[in-house]
Amino acid sequence: MPIIKHIHFMDGILEKTIVATQFFNFPAGVSLALDSGKTLSNVTIAYETYGTLSAKKDNAILICHALSGDAHAAFYSSAEDKKPGWWDTMIGPGKPFDTEKYFIICSNVIGGCKGSTGPSSVNPETGRPYGPSFPFITIGDMVRAQAHLIDHLGIGRLFAVAGGSMGGMQAMEWARSYPKRVRLCLPVATALYQSTQNIALHEIGRKSIMSDPNYRGGNFYDGEHPKAGLSIARMVGHISYLSDDAMTKKFGRRLQNMERYAFDLTDEFEVESYLDYQGESFIKRFDANSYIYITRAIDYFDIGYEAASLDKAFPKSDARFLVISFSSDWLYPPYQSEEIVTACKANHRPVTYVNITTNAGHDAFLIRNQTQEAVVRDFLDNEYRSIAEDRSHHFISSQNDIPRFDHRLIFDEIPSHSRVLDLGCGDGFLMHMLAKEKGCLTQGVEIDHANFLSCVSKRVDVIKHDFNDIFNGYPDNSFDYVLFNLTIQMTINASEALDAAVRVGRTVIVSFPNFAYIGNTVAFLSQGRMPKSKWLPFEWYDSPNIRMVTLKDFAVMCEEKGYNVRARYFYDETDIVWLLPNIFAPYCMFVFEKGR
Amino acid sequence: MPIIKHIHFMDGILEKTIVATQFFNFPAGVSLALDSGKTLSNVTIAYETYGTLSAKKDNAILICHALSGDAHAAFYSSAEDKKPGWWDTMIGPGKPFDTEKYFIICSNVIGGCKGSTGPSSVNPETGRPYGPSFPFITIGDMVRAQAHLIDHLGIGRLFAVAGGSMGGMQAMEWARSYPKRVRLCLPVATALYQSTQNIALHEIGRKSIMSDPNYRGGNFYDGEHPKAGLSIARMVGHISYLSDDAMTKKFGRRLQNMERYAFDLTDEFEVESYLDYQGESFIKRFDANSYIYITRAIDYFDIGYEAASLDKAFPKSDARFLVISFSSDWLYPPYQSEEIVTACKANHRPVTYVNITTNAGHDAFLIRNQTQEAVVRDFLDNEYRSIAEDRSHHFISSQNDIPRFDHRLIFDEIPSHSRVLDLGCGDGFLMHMLAKEKGCLTQGVEIDHANFLSCVSKRVDVIKHDFNDIFNGYPDNSFDYVLFNLTIQMTINASEALDAAVRVGRTVIVSFPNFAYIGNTVAFLSQGRMPKSKWLPFEWYDSPNIRMVTLKDFAVMCEEKGYNVRARYFYDETDIVWLLPNIFAPYCMFVFEKGR
Repeated sequence: MPIIKHIHFMDGILEKTIVATQFFNFPAGVSLALDSGKTLSNVTIAYETYGTLSAKKDNAILICHALSGDAHAAFYSSAEDKKPGWWDTMIGPGKPFDTEKYFIICSNVIGGCKGSTGPSSVNPETGRPYGPSFPFITIGDMVRAQAHLIDHLGIGRLFAVAGGSMGGMQAMEWARSYPKRVRLCLPVATALYQSTQNIALHEIGRKSIMSDPNYRGGNFYDGEHPKAGLSIARMVGHISYLSDDAMTKKFGRRLQNMERYAFDLTDEFEVESYLDYQGESFIKRFDANSYIYITRAIDYFDIGYEAASLDKAFPKSDARFLVISFSSDWLYPPYQSEEIVTACKANHRPVTYVNITTNAGHDAFLIRNQTQEAVVRDFLDNEYRSIAEDRSHHFISSQNDIPRFDHRLIFDEIPSHSRVLDLGCGDGFLMHMLAKEKGCLTQGVEIDHANFLSCVSKRVDVIKHDFNDIFNGYPDNSFDYVLFNLTIQMTINASEALDAAVRVGRTVIVSFPNFAYIGNTVAFLSQGRMPKSKWLPFEWYDSPNIRMVTLKDFAVMCEEKGYNVRARYFYDETDIVWLLPNIFAPYCMFVFEKGR
Repeated sequence: MPIIKHIHFMDGILEKTIVATQFFNFPAGVSLALDSGKTLSNVTIAYETYGTLSAKKDNAILICHALSGDAHAAFYSSAEDKKPGWWDTMIGPGKPFDTEKYFIICSNVIGGCKGSTGPSSVNPETGRPYGPSFPFITIGDMVRAQAHLIDHLGIGRLFAVAGGSMGGMQAMEWARSYPKRVRLCLPVATALYQSTQNIALHEIGRKSIMSDPNYRGGNFYDGEHPKAGLSIARMVGHISYLSDDAMTKKFGRRLQNMERYAFDLTDEFEVESYLDYQGESFIKRFDANSYIYITRAIDYFDIGYEAASLDKAFPKSDARFLVISFSSDWLYPPYQSEEIVTACKANHRPVTYVNITTNAGHDAFLIRNQTQEAVVRDFLDNEYRSIAEDRSHHFISSQNDIPRFDHRLIFDEIPSHSRVLDLGCGDGFLMHMLAKEKGCLTQGVEIDHANFLSCVSKRVDVIKHDFNDIFNGYPDNSFDYVLFNLTIQMTINASEALDAAVRVGRTVIVSFPNFAYIGNTVAFLSQGRMPKSKWLPFEWYDSPNIRMVTLKDFAVMCEEKGYNVRARYFYDETDIVWLLPNIFAPYCMFVFEKGR
């Protein structure tokens, strides 16, 4: 049971919730098998929990920490504690990881130095710290140790596993190693494998520690620790956690307590003394050997290698994924999160992805961010609600709940339990209805931020992205239907997009405003001006409709590309238009397949 | 005189040109005044020269080196020398810095350790190496020392100053400090000021050296040098010279002589041993104190501060600028080169700029690159030819040399000696004619690579860029004319672009294909399809013309925006169309100014 004390301060304003770290010792005789082939005995795992485990034990969320983190993810450790846990911005009552709903668990990784067994722990066989005799570990080992803890807590399936950076690696490793024990997987600011550049940055840190004379082959616990080396390792790390732009905004070229250059070797620039401070404070709280062991574990991480192929990374997983990256993160850049999304596509995993625009760099996941908070909150809460709800309600047969005529056309066209990809899914209403009323497996793509958030709030899995390269990674026929509902005319690479759509989907549905519609052309013919109408309501110089097309143009293109047109609809806001549709229908919809 | 020996090898295949480094000692009594307020006496500058100084002394190019470079920029130092000088790819007979045309000079910076006076030099007052008693220096000091050398060589005005990284800083400092002594300025892969992140990276290197026990306050010349610290400094530097992508392509996650992880502390990954090797080889050839002094000098660099404002960075300079950046350079990222371009705009300096797409990172400037070679070669050679040519030839009055009718219209519209900005200047033909025949000062902008190269080959200053933010940095009325010749219909932000154009130019000339032209509309009216004609020759799904507009649309917009239309032309390929132009003219041209 978590030990929680609420401390009310005398002035009555501040309330600190104190949470004690707990310790789980592996039962006697149980040791941890490591990827290196060695085993680790007498394992202790330090962990904290927040919130209450439900009777069904279906509300447990495991939070995984990054390189220098620990089990203390939220709240305070003592009344004197000035700073709360490392992800207190995200965990707590009413916060995205809501401790009033969920039972949150966070444990220190093995190899660490914050209570779990690591190189600074005493080796029971020798009575002295392990030091360099501690076995090398992997992310897989960390996760296997956590599984012992989860078993101990009596939890079968985790509602969610979440973490940033190395924590995100652990979350994905959970989905790979324990595919049926993870309902939601939230890898944040992370990657499927450690990149070459990041190995190189870690190598500098390790070399710096190891070339410190106080390192003494790792057996330094009885004397001075290799502080200078660890401090430089941390400085390198710290630069990689920020961004060029953030550092410029925070420090610029400002000098430290002087008007003009001192022309000496003191810390002249503010950023220099800031970095020194980061290094100095880190050596007080972290073990140099743990730094070496944990960076090695991160460098070893390569889920595609472990799974024999990225296409097999999560083949048996039934998790839904939420992937978050940050635009200015150059340690785990957005392209690496896009690779996670691609792995989800290859493994038929529904995925929600957002690359959050920020200058805060890699550390962005640790600080308050509205989008991260909203997306994580909604992603968790919708799933939680969907478990609670009775999911066996009857499908509707009428369409009274679908106000838009084009949505009704598509809703009717798509059979129950179809797999549907919607390019430009707007606020997600149609996908939501298809999932809810027809049991469809839906995946949306949407670039507008408000629409994206609206999709997430409707439990529509959605990738925030334009259509460039969006089909990459999807195996052929990944979907029964691919939709471009009023979006093809906004697509720069319209031709490539359609060709990719017929590969990825068995059937493609495309709708667009018919430029030849008389409501558009009347102005053109009478005044010689580009149409500006109810259906094309923009000026020539600011229209998002950069690809104007007529019904006939589209029909001819289908013929030229050899698409097999199964159905065509010509319609206005309320009904089908039967008479001379190229003139009298403001909208067209084509349903087609790849030709022979 | 340079000492050059041609060594013919016995197999007759390889010919090595041997160049000896020369040494210039400041005359007795002449010392170097430093920005710190101190002075440096008994200054020696190590330098090399290649090629022959012309009788008029108008062909001298100063090449400036980067942090770890030296005077040995090209050719070989000895017959045994395995590697040529650091910019041998660019300097030599027939190479861009062509030693058959130009007289090339490269000198080691003061503060360095390759022959010029620096901290490892013997202080004549004490008879022992300066060490930490060497005065701190700046990029300005380096340039001032070089000016002594250039004076010594009897050269008044340099034909060009060029350099990458810190070398580019020196090139710009030349244009600032000696505005009339630089004809061409070529800053490559550099910045107007050292960024916060780069100061931080340098600080790690310095801290690493200074926390090495062998550093001993900088007085290490009589014992072991701080090799471990310098090695780590170099490793940090080396990562910053490469790119994430290049490191991935070069090393990936490949292991060093093993199948699977060793689970120990050896260099398991190839990239680790590569980095170690870089560190190890650097400590053999570089002085740790020079590393500290030169990184400090770079960190001090801030040309905007020195000039009191970027708008005054090069106010008296008559140099033309060639700015080159590399897409994957994260040490001096392309945005910093764009800032140099912006400074050129503010200082009314003509500028050619290209951001070269490569994954080679910062070091890209040191390796062979077709675009860099072509652009530097043409930029230098055109200027050299223009000096040689008799520039006083008469202007043509006929237009027989201008084949395109729209070009003739514009050529007639623009008076002699106008300042002209051409947005989407194509192959630069019109700008070239305006400069050559009417003495106009022209500046082009062009995104197509072949067109960009064609402009450079015509001595048309051209920024390779789309139109986004292209007007930023130009003061109001920087130009007499701003042209959009058949480019506005390809511009996403057409409205903003026009508003910016009337700010930056006194007069704006816009031409575009008239969508309402009967040759376009006939197909539309008879077949209900989007026009595909001689004038709009694209399919709806791949047209670059994303903003279709008619003559009337444009006229109405001018009215709505309050533009003062001075002239309108309606024309086809050969002549003006007088009758019902909105129907019978395939092209329109509007000449207008900002309204009251």
